[in-house]
Amino acid sequence: MNKNLNLDKHISSQFNDDLERVKTHVLAMGGLVEAQINDSITALIEGNASLAQKVRDKERAINSMELDIDAECATILALRQPAASDLRLLIAALKSITDIERMGDEAKRIASFALKLLEDGEAWTGYKEFNKIGERVRKMTSDTFNSFARFDVELARTIGDQDRSVDTAYHAAIQELLSQISDNPENLIQNMNVMWSLRSLERIGDHCINIAEYVIYLVEGDDVRHAKDKAKEKKK
Amino acid sequence: MNKNLNLDKHISSQFNDDLERVKTHVLAMGGLVEAQINDSITALIEGNASLAQKVRDKERAINSMELDIDAECATILALRQPAASDLRLLIAALKSITDIERMGDEAKRIASFALKLLEDGEAWTGYKEFNKIGERVRKMTSDTFNSFARFDVELARTIGDQDRSVDTAYHAAIQELLSQISDNPENLIQNMNVMWSLRSLERIGDHCINIAEYVIYLVEGDDVRHAKDKAKEKKK
Repeated sequence: MNKNLNLDKHISSQFNDDLERVKTHVLAMGGLVEAQINDSITALIEGNASLAQKVRDKERAINSMELDIDAECATILALRQPAASDLRLLIAALKSITDIERMGDEAKRIASFALKLLEDGEAWTGYKEFNKIGERVRKMTSDTFNSFARFDVELARTIGDQDRSVDTAYHAAIQELLSQISDNPENLIQNMNVMWSLRSLERIGDHCINIAEYVIYLVEGDDVRHAKDKAKEKKK
Repeated sequence: MNKNLNLDKHISSQFNDDLERVKTHVLAMGGLVEAQINDSITALIEGNASLAQKVRDKERAINSMELDIDAECATILALRQPAASDLRLLIAALKSITDIERMGDEAKRIASFALKLLEDGEAWTGYKEFNKIGERVRKMTSDTFNSFARFDVELARTIGDQDRSVDTAYHAAIQELLSQISDNPENLIQNMNVMWSLRSLERIGDHCINIAEYVIYLVEGDDVRHAKDKAKEKKK
C-alpha cells in the first residue's frame, strides 16, 4: 500500500490481500458513484433523458456493492484481529461506503429531476449556476476518491475549503432562484426542481467532507470530525 | 442483554461490560437527539425562540458523543476479538451513530428555520401539516430507539411502514405549499422555510429507517438493507 500509511506488516500475506481487496472494492464503488454523479449532472444540463434513465437504473448495483463490502469488512474483523491502521482502514471503509451509497442516492435524485424538467418541456433558466456548482462538485468528488486511493491527507484536507466554496455558490444560486420565483411565479414547479437538484449537489459535497475526514482518520489515527467543536471547547 | 439476542457468553465479564456500555452510550446519544427533535418541532410550532436556541447550542454535545462512541468501538474491536452478534453490535453501533448525528443536524436545521420564521414576524400557514408530520416523526424516532434498546425486531420492522406514511404526508404538504406559493408569492421566503423544515423532518424519517435496519441486522445477522433490490433481482 501507499507510503503515506504505515500499514502493519502481517505475517499472513492473505491478510494483506484481504485489506487491499477491501480498498479496491471501496474505490470501485466510489468510481461507479462518481460516474453516476457526472452522468446525472450531464443529463440535467443537456436534457438527456436516456442518460438520466441510465443513472436511475444503475443505482441498484451500488446498493449491492455496499452490502458486499459491509459483509467483507465484518468477515475480516471476525477472522483476523486487525489493530492500528488495519483496523482504521476497515472502520473508514465501513463508514465511507454509507456516504458513497447516499451520494449515489443524490445522483439518482438529480437524474429524476432531469426527467421532470424534460417533461416540463420548457427551457429552464438556472442552467449556468447549476453547471458552475456541478463542476465544483465533480472536482470535489474526484479529489475525495483520489485522496482515499492514495491515502493522500493533503488532498483530503482541501475538501473542506472546496465545500465552503460550493456552499457559497449554492446559497447565491438559491437566492437567485427565489427572486426568479417571485418575478415569475408561473415557472414555480420548474424552479423548485432546479432548487432540489442544487440541494442534491450540495449534499454530495457534504458526503465528500465526511469521506475526506475518514481518510485523515485512517492515515493519521486522529479524528478530525467536529474538530471545530473541539477547538471551541478548548477556548472556553 | 435482551432475550431477543443470543449474545455469545464471554469468559471475560469485562467484555460483557464493554458491550453493554457501548449500547448504553448509543442509547444516551439517541435520547439526546430525540429530545432535540422534539424541542425543534415544538420551537417551530410554538414560535419559541429560546427553545430553538437551546437546540442549536446542544448540537455540539451530540457531535462529541459520536466521536467518543466511535473511539470506544474501535478500542473494543482492537483489544477483544468480537465475533457473531458481538461484532454485529459494534458494527451496528458504529453505523447507527452516524445516522443519529445527522438526525441531530436536521433538528438543528429545523431550529434555525424556526428562528427565521420568527424573524419574519408573520403567522405562517403550514402549521397544521407540519404538526401532523412532526407527530409521526416523533413517534418513528421514539420507536426506532426503543427497538434498539430492546433489540426488538418486530418494532424495527414497523419503521418502514411508518416512513411511507410520513413520505405520503410530506409530498401532500409540499404540493399544498407550492399552491400557496403560486397564490401568494409575497409569502415566498416564509413558505420556503416551512418547506425546508418539512424536508428535514422527512430526512429524519430516512435516518430512522437506516437505524431500524441496523437493529434487524444486529439481531438476525441478516442484512435487510436494499432488500427490495434483492427481491427484484431474484424475480429476474
